[in-house]
Amino acid sequence: MTDVKNVTAAILIIGNEVLSGRTKDANLNWMAKRLTDLGIRLKEARVIPDVENVIVSAVNEMRTTYDYVFTTGGIGPTHDDITSACIAKAFGAEIHRHPEAKALLEAYIPADRLNEARLKMADVPVGSELIENPVSRAPGFRMENVFIMAGVPSIMRAMFDSLAPLLTGGAKVMSQAVATYLPEGAVAEGLGQIQDRYPDADIGSYPFYRDGKFGCTLVTRTSDEADLATAADEIRAMIIALGGEPIEQDMVSGSAEDEDGDDFDTGDKKK
Amino acid sequence: MTDVKNVTAAILIIGNEVLSGRTKDANLNWMAKRLTDLGIRLKEARVIPDVENVIVSAVNEMRTTYDYVFTTGGIGPTHDDITSACIAKAFGAEIHRHPEAKALLEAYIPADRLNEARLKMADVPVGSELIENPVSRAPGFRMENVFIMAGVPSIMRAMFDSLAPLLTGGAKVMSQAVATYLPEGAVAEGLGQIQDRYPDADIGSYPFYRDGKFGCTLVTRTSDEADLATAADEIRAMIIALGGEPIEQDMVSGSAEDEDGDDFDTGDKKK
Repeated sequence: MTDVKNVTAAILIIGNEVLSGRTKDANLNWMAKRLTDLGIRLKEARVIPDVENVIVSAVNEMRTTYDYVFTTGGIGPTHDDITSACIAKAFGAEIHRHPEAKALLEAYIPADRLNEARLKMADVPVGSELIENPVSRAPGFRMENVFIMAGVPSIMRAMFDSLAPLLTGGAKVMSQAVATYLPEGAVAEGLGQIQDRYPDADIGSYPFYRDGKFGCTLVTRTSDEADLATAADEIRAMIIALGGEPIEQDMVSGSAEDEDGDDFDTGDKKK
Repeated sequence: MTDVKNVTAAILIIGNEVLSGRTKDANLNWMAKRLTDLGIRLKEARVIPDVENVIVSAVNEMRTTYDYVFTTGGIGPTHDDITSACIAKAFGAEIHRHPEAKALLEAYIPADRLNEARLKMADVPVGSELIENPVSRAPGFRMENVFIMAGVPSIMRAMFDSLAPLLTGGAKVMSQAVATYLPEGAVAEGLGQIQDRYPDADIGSYPFYRDGKFGCTLVTRTSDEADLATAADEIRAMIIALGGEPIEQDMVSGSAEDEDGDDFDTGDKKK
């Protein structure tokens, strides 16, 4: 057990285009890994449309529930970019044209092209701090525990790198994954018993189908190093007792591996 | 304007592994496109952990807010598969072993391997109907307006195909996309004026960077065919007036195109 605070976060993905299916979100998984590596537990992610009351209420719900909130999308120059105004409304703050943000745009965009729409990208709620955007200059911003970033992945990632030093992580969740070519249904009972013995760990089973064979990856996640090692040992022993072979997966944090997402368990299929 | 009902939906992605970053969700975008094609408006998607009270309250909030709710994940045989129990709790229903689901498993899994963990996959809330799973047999289920599916993409897709005939779409949202190599900041003002003239349409601007040039795709979405055509004409005329060239994008529904998600607008960058 650890007495380090659990630090939590939520992600709010703002954009009609993700909900219509036109754009495939590419930010959630990237941020999830980064947060895990920083010792911050992502507890919720939500995709919502460009609708003021929906954005305002989601922001207010999340910022009072989680330690950190990260938003993506809606901070460009067009009429459908309403995130900054919504953040101001959520906090009951006024919007102002941030002098430093304006200067950044003035230094980057020729004067004859710096129209009102583009200058709108310098409008942020009073009380917010800018987040640097090394890619295209127009900054993100931080309002208390809410970090507002662009939706375009290359810009979002650069902004996240800019703000990461401001984040304070808690107990880092480590994970250990052991795979085996036994189907989930075969390990379920023993795995549940191991979970019962490690109530502070989070043990998950992720089925896969690979090279014509069914199997599952059994992942232990905990911030307690001793529990991590002994729970993984028990999982290996269980696999061997069931006639399987434990296959080590090299994971030092929860973020080391991508599943291809197309694995499954069918039990020991007849035929 | 149309008097066909707007039919709405939400997606609930249940799984610690998506929030830890270990698994990249591959279901949201696929379902978003399918729903758009069916005339169903996806209004929200949420990723939540395998935690009972979180699942129960999200299900209850969504099923009373939207016409349809689709869940993915947590219906396998292991201890961390708690979705069915949570759905029962959300509806105040008992869980029972569905005879038809049990028969499906019995026909598929050899008797000596059909243990209690696997049989758990036949346990569904009283009052629910099964959703066929042609991939690995263990069914999903429908409880009123909530459709419970597996998280593994190949199985989820097969289940969605099984349940799609049960869905009733509303006014289908059509979309028309016109791209141009003008940056967002240049079209913002004119685009906002066009949006003002078409209050029932949803006009979005999606910046991109392609072949070393900045541009944006301007997408009109509406269920009114006449509005769609005239708004798109106004967008083309605006692009030409600004010295740009309209590039038609062949989209008959909101789902026809994937952006690569790494496009952006930097304004007319100096140097």
